[in-house]
Amino acid sequence: MIGIFDSGAGGLTVYKEIAVAYPEKQIIYLGDLANLPYGSKSPEMIRRIAEKNIDFLISKGAKIIVIACNTASGRSPLLKKRPVPILNVIDPAVKLAAESTKNNKVGVIGTLGTINSGAYEERIKNINPKISTVGEATPLLVPLVEENWIDKIETKRILKHYLRPLKAAGIDTLILGCTHYPLLQPQIKRIMGPKIKIISSAQAVVGELEKTIKNKKIKLNPGVHQFYITDYSLNLDKISQKFLGKKIKFEKVHLF
Amino acid sequence: MIGIFDSGAGGLTVYKEIAVAYPEKQIIYLGDLANLPYGSKSPEMIRRIAEKNIDFLISKGAKIIVIACNTASGRSPLLKKRPVPILNVIDPAVKLAAESTKNNKVGVIGTLGTINSGAYEERIKNINPKISTVGEATPLLVPLVEENWIDKIETKRILKHYLRPLKAAGIDTLILGCTHYPLLQPQIKRIMGPKIKIISSAQAVVGELEKTIKNKKIKLNPGVHQFYITDYSLNLDKISQKFLGKKIKFEKVHLF
Repeated sequence: MIGIFDSGAGGLTVYKEIAVAYPEKQIIYLGDLANLPYGSKSPEMIRRIAEKNIDFLISKGAKIIVIACNTASGRSPLLKKRPVPILNVIDPAVKLAAESTKNNKVGVIGTLGTINSGAYEERIKNINPKISTVGEATPLLVPLVEENWIDKIETKRILKHYLRPLKAAGIDTLILGCTHYPLLQPQIKRIMGPKIKIISSAQAVVGELEKTIKNKKIKLNPGVHQFYITDYSLNLDKISQKFLGKKIKFEKVHLF
Repeated sequence: MIGIFDSGAGGLTVYKEIAVAYPEKQIIYLGDLANLPYGSKSPEMIRRIAEKNIDFLISKGAKIIVIACNTASGRSPLLKKRPVPILNVIDPAVKLAAESTKNNKVGVIGTLGTINSGAYEERIKNINPKISTVGEATPLLVPLVEENWIDKIETKRILKHYLRPLKAAGIDTLILGCTHYPLLQPQIKRIMGPKIKIISSAQAVVGELEKTIKNKKIKLNPGVHQFYITDYSLNLDKISQKFLGKKIKFEKVHLF
């Protein structure tokens, strides 16, 4: 069983990619809506929340876990060791970006929490100290996606405003450091132009997952995909429908 | 002592009004950042959180409590009775709106949670069944205020988009049903025009507070204003500075 967790429905973009790779294997998704959003919480609070989510997924039978949330992924070095591999969405994207950049200038967009944590910058530096990273917090993008304002002129203007300093810095690679952003990828691509490589952290983690499952010879049982939440949310059905193109049945669990 | 709580810093707009009325009395403010935002949480979860916040304020010595959060105010009928009066931001605004409207058409803007709860509509109907209420969820406004995009052209366009159906419905009174919105009041006023009366739930509750303190002969001790939070947040200092025009020292408490 593959276990996935996120603070809400955003991680469903990660689930979607994993479901394409493993359509007939057991997958369990936990949307921790009771604690949404992680972005404004302290590192210690995020660590405690992540440990509880991991406990739950392991108790359900997860043999490998994906942290499908950039904020929680930024705190992954704080998490205790587990008997199962725990992947996050930052490391695979960072690896791809370091391989992709020719001019050693990488851009990252994300929530305030992700950008201020410096997690992307630090991990890129660890791989290749010559690469400079330009981070830009883009906190209006999540509400714009959740409001379904994807194709509106206001969203295009806001994107242009956010992406201007990244273009000015001359980056050749841009990481979408938030699970909501793949829904804006065509709009971002259009503004950045065809020469800029765009890396989605949601897509990047799937390659890493496949490699780890193969290398560690993890046996996945056939089965269904289950979806849990820690609280109901008003627009959950609308958002999950938008992310997956279909309705999902969520089951509520009390973890907190 | 006057106790105030909100899910975050938004309630500081309510505190600000109360501080003007009682500058030298003890006031205690609790920003429940650990559970922010309430808007996407279930009614039962909001009720549990509100009870804990109220317990804390009473334990500190509050003689009257103001729920400075529209979502939690919408759940106020679910709260248990307490030895101290508990005011909320909805009822006073509703009362003012019912007195103000001449054509019995009142508009309300708020978060998705506030508008979908129907709390304003229901309470307006209770006062005067002849008044029809038009609610409009405006979920982009909180992030726009927190991002300090108040005077940007994009915000004006988004406001125009949101306010169009309210203007078309011919309302003569508009309730700002979210504690962040007073910061956008000039922009909203400009779009709605001089004939539309705008009622801020933050301002409305202060009149009710003064009346209750007088009627119930509540004795307030002189003292300082204290600020507590249940978790740190990245942009708390920036936002509270914007709301109050000065820096505040917050003390962290563990309630959850």
